[in-house]
Amino acid sequence: MIEKVLMGIATAGIKPSGKPDLLVVYFEKPVTVSAVYTKNHFKAAPVIYSKGLTEKKQTFRAFVVNSGNANCGTGERGLRDAKAMAQRVAENLGISPDDVLVFSTGIIGVPLPMDKVLKGIDEACKNLEPLNLKAAADAISTTDRFPKYSMAETAFGFGKGAGMIHPNMATMLAYVFTPAKLDYETLRKIHLEINEKTFNSITVDGCTSTNDSFLLISLGEEELPIQKVERDIFTVAEDIAKQIVADGEGATKIGVVEVINAESKEKARAIAERIATSLLVKTMLFGCDPNWGRILAAAGSAFEYPIDTQKVKIYIGDYLLFENGHPTGIDLKPVELFMRRNKEIPIKVDLSEGKHSWRYYTSDLTYDYVKLNAEYTT
Amino acid sequence: MIEKVLMGIATAGIKPSGKPDLLVVYFEKPVTVSAVYTKNHFKAAPVIYSKGLTEKKQTFRAFVVNSGNANCGTGERGLRDAKAMAQRVAENLGISPDDVLVFSTGIIGVPLPMDKVLKGIDEACKNLEPLNLKAAADAISTTDRFPKYSMAETAFGFGKGAGMIHPNMATMLAYVFTPAKLDYETLRKIHLEINEKTFNSITVDGCTSTNDSFLLISLGEEELPIQKVERDIFTVAEDIAKQIVADGEGATKIGVVEVINAESKEKARAIAERIATSLLVKTMLFGCDPNWGRILAAAGSAFEYPIDTQKVKIYIGDYLLFENGHPTGIDLKPVELFMRRNKEIPIKVDLSEGKHSWRYYTSDLTYDYVKLNAEYTT
Repeated sequence: MIEKVLMGIATAGIKPSGKPDLLVVYFEKPVTVSAVYTKNHFKAAPVIYSKGLTEKKQTFRAFVVNSGNANCGTGERGLRDAKAMAQRVAENLGISPDDVLVFSTGIIGVPLPMDKVLKGIDEACKNLEPLNLKAAADAISTTDRFPKYSMAETAFGFGKGAGMIHPNMATMLAYVFTPAKLDYETLRKIHLEINEKTFNSITVDGCTSTNDSFLLISLGEEELPIQKVERDIFTVAEDIAKQIVADGEGATKIGVVEVINAESKEKARAIAERIATSLLVKTMLFGCDPNWGRILAAAGSAFEYPIDTQKVKIYIGDYLLFENGHPTGIDLKPVELFMRRNKEIPIKVDLSEGKHSWRYYTSDLTYDYVKLNAEYTT
Repeated sequence: MIEKVLMGIATAGIKPSGKPDLLVVYFEKPVTVSAVYTKNHFKAAPVIYSKGLTEKKQTFRAFVVNSGNANCGTGERGLRDAKAMAQRVAENLGISPDDVLVFSTGIIGVPLPMDKVLKGIDEACKNLEPLNLKAAADAISTTDRFPKYSMAETAFGFGKGAGMIHPNMATMLAYVFTPAKLDYETLRKIHLEINEKTFNSITVDGCTSTNDSFLLISLGEEELPIQKVERDIFTVAEDIAKQIVADGEGATKIGVVEVINAESKEKARAIAERIATSLLVKTMLFGCDPNWGRILAAAGSAFEYPIDTQKVKIYIGDYLLFENGHPTGIDLKPVELFMRRNKEIPIKVDLSEGKHSWRYYTSDLTYDYVKLNAEYTT
């Protein structure tokens, strides 16, 4: 299925590292695209440009991504540059500019070096080959420590992101494809739901970048059972999302925060988010400290959602640490060892009041996080 | 005015350090009390106990604070212990138990050592003397690096807090007094408004503790001009709040985040809060990096409040870094030096759309923050 997607990669010299930094993805026939973008009010120029297009139409023929420069905080000129990128891709491929989406990631506040970008587009379009997930992920990476991609039976995808980091490598990008023939409404519904459960349920630093974009693309090749397709898209999206958390700045652990038996999904999610974004929980993961008090205080701070503290149970791994309003008093030494020995640390809060649940992935807060984010001087 | 308030201090042995850990404050005649407590759903026993009282009545004769143990996550027993503390104070002073409020701060999940606490109350009540702000602040301190108190012409107060830290020293406490004769409604109105602008506009780690309490107490001694009194109460509350930020775990800088010319107070506040709690802004303060992109991205992430990015101006100190949708391009070296040389760093975001503003104080995120919060093992 993957060979139905073509790609071209170039080393345009936008990244100082001299690694590939330009990717063109091309579809021989129109594909159906559902896109979600950052909610940040400061949107980068390519986000404003592509959002304008995906709000008007649903089928496209190509997209282009440059890494090394986010084309953000670049005013009117940024918008002209984004448009020029689409036009150049369209000229090279003999398609309409309106069929091309544009994405950028990298440093912000600096205009794109357009001569390099345009030459890179020409080069990438001349060398089209079947999509290689790893190579595509590498071409869009910035400070990522490893390329992020995933594959299931009826879906595949690639992405990038490791937090909004040094020096403002501002973006989470993800592109997931399915060969399934899906109409736009179905695709959109699946996309929005899966987006909430995956890319919108991870946190590294609690920050929302100016360039975040996640595309779900139906290639329209095959009739496939919808449940299966949905499951596979979820698997691929969740896998990429988890890779982003694992690559979180300075991260050594992945906290898997699960709130179960809540009276509503919204409540489960709000409480999971409070725990996942708590600095005290994140430093506790780094320190391998089974500190139920921090989990409890974070769970109680989703103010709009009252909790019956007598009914709450708190687990780390399978260890029950708190119930009936006070600590269980179990020996914490084995819990600490469990935390030291595992990279993924499950934190479970059972509200014992309903049947809804939500899962959130978080990275730990480490010395290296501070180092990465404090040591840069403009 | 301060001699109208009596206090007794004891070293009850609740704190392992062997420093004073019990404070009784006594008023010879009833005083009018307005109290606000943590919004966390996990409230410590003394908060549940005192909140029950201040919701029923408005005049009191005494309060007791122990440090070293927060009496939180201690179930039914915790509530009985809080009540027993009030009763012991009442017996000693010959007043009604309902006239005594109770506060605790320190480690959570461990029952109070009641024999020590009760003996400490006896001792404190036997040695009443005029209020000494520094001594009172010391007696309620836990991991604070310095005592926090402040005085103006018609108001004075003391407090404690440095974040919710190692090992769960869970509390911000503040007590502000005025000799002014104020009815409860006036006192309450002033209290709620000042609370929002001071203790509810500071952040160290974004966490809400289980024990936070802030009391405003009218001694009813003098007729004083209300505007003057209000200003002085604000000055004292803001000063104590700022001391808490300055004592934030591992903090080396105070970020003074100001959002000005917003179309509403709520909008100014929401955006100021996003900036003040952004980990990227907090690490940038530590790194002395004039990184306007992080301020911009944080300002844009108060999703419910759209921003016209073309109109936004961003300043650090008096340096204008961003306007008209792109960086001003000024030399950043002097800005970095300014940040290195000052402990207080003003960050100003001008929305150029209205006339409302809000100020938020934040600490920087440092290696020592991670160290303090990660190295503890239960």
